[in-house]
Amino acid sequence: MSNSKKIAGGVCAPEGFAAGATGAGIKTGKVLRDDIAVVWSEAPSVSAATFTTNKVKAAPVLVSAEHLKAGRNRAVILNSGNANACTGEQGMKDARAMADAAGALLELSAKEVLVCSTGRIGVAMPMDRVLKGIAALHPSRSGSKAAAAAIMTSDTFAKEFAVEVTGKNGKFRIGGIAKGAGMIDPNMATMLCVVTTDAALPQAVLRKELKRSVANSFNRITVDGDMSTNDTVILLANGLSGAAPDLGDFSAALDEVTRALAHMIVKDGEGVSRFVEVEVTGAMTEKEARTAAEAIANSTLVKCAWAGGDPNWGRILDAVGYCGIRMNEAKTDIFYDKLAAVEGGMAAKTRIAKLCAIAARKAFKVTVALNLGKADYHVWTTDLTEEYVRLNLGE
Amino acid sequence: MSNSKKIAGGVCAPEGFAAGATGAGIKTGKVLRDDIAVVWSEAPSVSAATFTTNKVKAAPVLVSAEHLKAGRNRAVILNSGNANACTGEQGMKDARAMADAAGALLELSAKEVLVCSTGRIGVAMPMDRVLKGIAALHPSRSGSKAAAAAIMTSDTFAKEFAVEVTGKNGKFRIGGIAKGAGMIDPNMATMLCVVTTDAALPQAVLRKELKRSVANSFNRITVDGDMSTNDTVILLANGLSGAAPDLGDFSAALDEVTRALAHMIVKDGEGVSRFVEVEVTGAMTEKEARTAAEAIANSTLVKCAWAGGDPNWGRILDAVGYCGIRMNEAKTDIFYDKLAAVEGGMAAKTRIAKLCAIAARKAFKVTVALNLGKADYHVWTTDLTEEYVRLNLGE
Repeated sequence: MSNSKKIAGGVCAPEGFAAGATGAGIKTGKVLRDDIAVVWSEAPSVSAATFTTNKVKAAPVLVSAEHLKAGRNRAVILNSGNANACTGEQGMKDARAMADAAGALLELSAKEVLVCSTGRIGVAMPMDRVLKGIAALHPSRSGSKAAAAAIMTSDTFAKEFAVEVTGKNGKFRIGGIAKGAGMIDPNMATMLCVVTTDAALPQAVLRKELKRSVANSFNRITVDGDMSTNDTVILLANGLSGAAPDLGDFSAALDEVTRALAHMIVKDGEGVSRFVEVEVTGAMTEKEARTAAEAIANSTLVKCAWAGGDPNWGRILDAVGYCGIRMNEAKTDIFYDKLAAVEGGMAAKTRIAKLCAIAARKAFKVTVALNLGKADYHVWTTDLTEEYVRLNLGE
Repeated sequence: MSNSKKIAGGVCAPEGFAAGATGAGIKTGKVLRDDIAVVWSEAPSVSAATFTTNKVKAAPVLVSAEHLKAGRNRAVILNSGNANACTGEQGMKDARAMADAAGALLELSAKEVLVCSTGRIGVAMPMDRVLKGIAALHPSRSGSKAAAAAIMTSDTFAKEFAVEVTGKNGKFRIGGIAKGAGMIDPNMATMLCVVTTDAALPQAVLRKELKRSVANSFNRITVDGDMSTNDTVILLANGLSGAAPDLGDFSAALDEVTRALAHMIVKDGEGVSRFVEVEVTGAMTEKEARTAAEAIANSTLVKCAWAGGDPNWGRILDAVGYCGIRMNEAKTDIFYDKLAAVEGGMAAKTRIAKLCAIAARKAFKVTVALNLGKADYHVWTTDLTEEYVRLNLGE
């Protein structure tokens, strides 16, 4: 078993990574806020990334996918305030120009740079300001927090996390920054995340590991069921720790980082007052367990009930019933934490006040036991509050 | 062409139908409100019905499906305040007892009576009060409005509609009552509807016509994407007009009634401030057009934007992109009423103020032209307001 401990430094915690941020005036408002960030490996690195599955992909996603092909990327240039989505040919030119400018700054080829944008859709990037901003960046070993803050949109806090692992084959570090807020759904809705490591791993392993870890973290969170045009998770590994870690050690540590960042994104969802794990057990297949978990987690009525501290199991059972999976009402149990709310499709003997006490907490777990097969799945989600609606009434 | 005109009388407008309501104390609250209703054909009639597709079906749905088999039902007994869902064997006994009691009142066999319940899930029916209430019913030719009011849950107005048709083969009438409010989704979420006609039609035709008409009305409305355990639409035909109508005349008139009631349900959705028709054109298949229309209509973010009067087309395009259908961003156009918001996947030249003026209206139409194939589909939906969340915080 490896020994992992949480450390400071975020995306710059691993050896040889630097980050920085600046305000280029892309975000509008009275106060100039940082809206451009960079993450950079001083040494050569290998890279992997996963992108949104939305058929409408923003220009930076298309350009990053192109640049990722060689798997030798060393830097990521990011901006908030403008998503550079639905911007046609001009958007592609602008995303490429961002990679060019970051490459010039860091003495890399444009192809070594990945590009991430988040913010307003359908508006041209103010490229004069963007390019001036990129030229003004000064990445440093202490720049993680500033970079994490610069990519925030409606996020209320900057998200970073890092661990140091003492494993079988030596010591290595993994760190990351992320942004989320609204529009968070499985398959990576509006979220950006950059993870770095000084472990030495072949690119093929890195790619496989990132895919696996994203499936267990960012693809299991949902705030509102919507999914964006810009989502990207990037992993850079420069090997500077000298450790070629045991794969099990690396997997566990990577999951720790991605899960921590995913949970921060859910907890910072727009107007969120409750963090809920929804687990479905005993389904016939994992796909069916997932369908049911996501139907519950995305049910407007279930989420509204939670916002009111109401353990309304009728709405949960209803969602399981309409989501299309195989289920038998008379075999279905529902639990709030470990307390039975439903047994065999009917109200359990538990006093309702006890269930209400759990639903009133800031965080709880709902388990639906279908008692049919052996497949399980869980997702992390939130309630739906009046505050959420207020925040999304328009821009 | 037939000549149809709107008339008063709702479910009692057709010859030989009576309705009534009473308060049995199933609904709680300081004021006794009517919560039991009956619709009854004085003469023999044929019947058809469609039920919720939710796998969790309430007892009255199961009992009605059983009683429907002969297709000779003459009465419907309905209650609000308790859905008699997730109530196990006792629930089945209670639903049967309701049919028995209504049969005794109207001198029918229990099998001739259909049963509908709506309200709280998972709580046993207060059968002593229910049976006393049923015995106190006095159906009359002027009882439609009272029956429509008695089945309301969070509805804010009673829903009834009727037409008189002068067609090729004589005069006939169709009338109906309905209830809706929250949890309205394609495939008939919490809604009950009873339609009556004095046209003479064979049961097989009635069944086919109801299925077709429900697909074009109640199955095209969505308020929150949730779907209930109790939804039922019933059609009774007693032939007392003496007219065996031309099928085209009947279809058109039935659609007029079901569509009018469906629109009332949407407009009375919980906390609704806008009524929106979402049309998707040029899809590769009707199924894909429907998937896209429903994804837009159920997107929390799109609905919140409408609540704020924001024609946010980015969120609409985003929903089309993630719903899984074939689409090409660069070919996609979006319109608010007839005004272009998006042309070829990018912002149209239309002034944003003009689009905002449309999105500020109480009712408008959003068209997404995929420009790929020839299939179209439309649904009717609403915005999502803070008021909706407030109403659904718990019971």
